[in-house]
Amino acid sequence: MRWDRPPMHDVSVTLPAWVVGQVDYATRYPAAEARMRVAIGLASENIARGTGGPFGAAIFERESGLLVAVGVNAVTRLNNSTVHAEMLAFQLAEKRVGSYSLRAEGHPEHELFSSCAPCAMCLGAALWSGVTKLTFGALREDAEAIGFDEGPVFDESYAYLHARGVETVAGFLRDEARAVLERYQAQGGTVYNAEGRATDR
Amino acid sequence: MRWDRPPMHDVSVTLPAWVVGQVDYATRYPAAEARMRVAIGLASENIARGTGGPFGAAIFERESGLLVAVGVNAVTRLNNSTVHAEMLAFQLAEKRVGSYSLRAEGHPEHELFSSCAPCAMCLGAALWSGVTKLTFGALREDAEAIGFDEGPVFDESYAYLHARGVETVAGFLRDEARAVLERYQAQGGTVYNAEGRATDR
Repeated sequence: MRWDRPPMHDVSVTLPAWVVGQVDYATRYPAAEARMRVAIGLASENIARGTGGPFGAAIFERESGLLVAVGVNAVTRLNNSTVHAEMLAFQLAEKRVGSYSLRAEGHPEHELFSSCAPCAMCLGAALWSGVTKLTFGALREDAEAIGFDEGPVFDESYAYLHARGVETVAGFLRDEARAVLERYQAQGGTVYNAEGRATDR
Repeated sequence: MRWDRPPMHDVSVTLPAWVVGQVDYATRYPAAEARMRVAIGLASENIARGTGGPFGAAIFERESGLLVAVGVNAVTRLNNSTVHAEMLAFQLAEKRVGSYSLRAEGHPEHELFSSCAPCAMCLGAALWSGVTKLTFGALREDAEAIGFDEGPVFDESYAYLHARGVETVAGFLRDEARAVLERYQAQGGTVYNAEGRATDR
C-alpha cells in the first residue's frame, strides 16, 4: 500500500544475475544473424528463468561487431513498467560509452537488435539513444497475437525515424523470434496490457 | 572510451539531491493549477540548479490530491537519454506503490502533470504506467521552438491513448510552462536533438 511507503528518490535498474554468465562480450559478431540470435537467445532464456517477458535486445557497434550492451524485459521482476529489453540495453550502452548519445561525432555507429518490434516507448527511446539502425525479429502482430499491446506506433513513426537517419529492418529471423513468444504463451506467462493490468494467462 | 570500460549490468536512476528538500509531499493538492505548478516549479528549479533540461513532472492520486512521485529531466546529469522527467516520475511512483501498474484494481487512479507535452517515448510510457490522465503545459511547438525534438507523436497517438481510457489535457498553464523553456534557451542550456548529438547553445 502506497500509504505506508515514503516518497522515493531513486530506482535501480538491473539485469538479472544469470545474464552476467550467459553473454559472451569477448566474441565479435560479424553477421546480422549472429547479432539477432543474441537478442532472441536472451528473450528465450528470460522466460526459461522466469525473470520477465519474452523480449531481448542487444546493441552492437555496427562495423566492428562488438557487443556493447544487452537487455531483457524486466517489468515484472523490477515492478517497473519502463524496463523493456530495449530500454535496459540503451541505458547500459550509454553507461558503458559514458554518454547520453551513442551517436557522438568521431565514435563508431551503433545498432540495436531486438527480438520483437519496439513498442511506442522503445521506438521513441531508440531515436534519443543515437543508434542508427534497428533490426527486429517478431512483428507487432506477433506480440499482439499473445496479448501484448505495442502502443501508438504507425507507418509514419518509422518514416519519422528514417528521416532522421535511423534505418529499420523488420521481421528478421521472424520465425525464431516468434517461437519465443509462443512458448511464453504456452507456459502461461504474465501479459501486462494497455490497461496497465496484469493478466495471468 | 568504450574500449576501456567493461560491460555494464546495472544503472542507477536518481533525483538530484535538491529535490528531496524542495518538494512538499505532505500537502494535498486539490486544484489542477497547484498540481501543474509542482511540475513547472521542478522544471524551473532544474535549470536554475543546472541539473538537466527544462522539464518537470509530477504524479498525483486523482481524487485525494496526494503527491505520489516527481521527476525532473536528468539526461545530461546521468548521461542517460531515457531519463526524461516523466520517465523518472513513472518509475518512482511505481516503486512507491510497489507495482508496475498505477492502475491496479481496487487502488486509486493516478494522473500525470508534465510541464511540457510528452515526447514519443514518454507518451508510450504513460500508457504502460497505468495513469488515467495526462495534463501538460507547454506544447510540442514550444519545445521545438527552442530546438528540442518530440519524436513521432501524432494526433492518432493521442487517439490511441483515449481509446484505452487515458484522458489528455494540452496547454494547461501554457504561458508559465513555456516561460521555463524560454529561460533555458536564454541561459544557453544544452539541447540534445533527434540526431542524438548534444548542441551547446
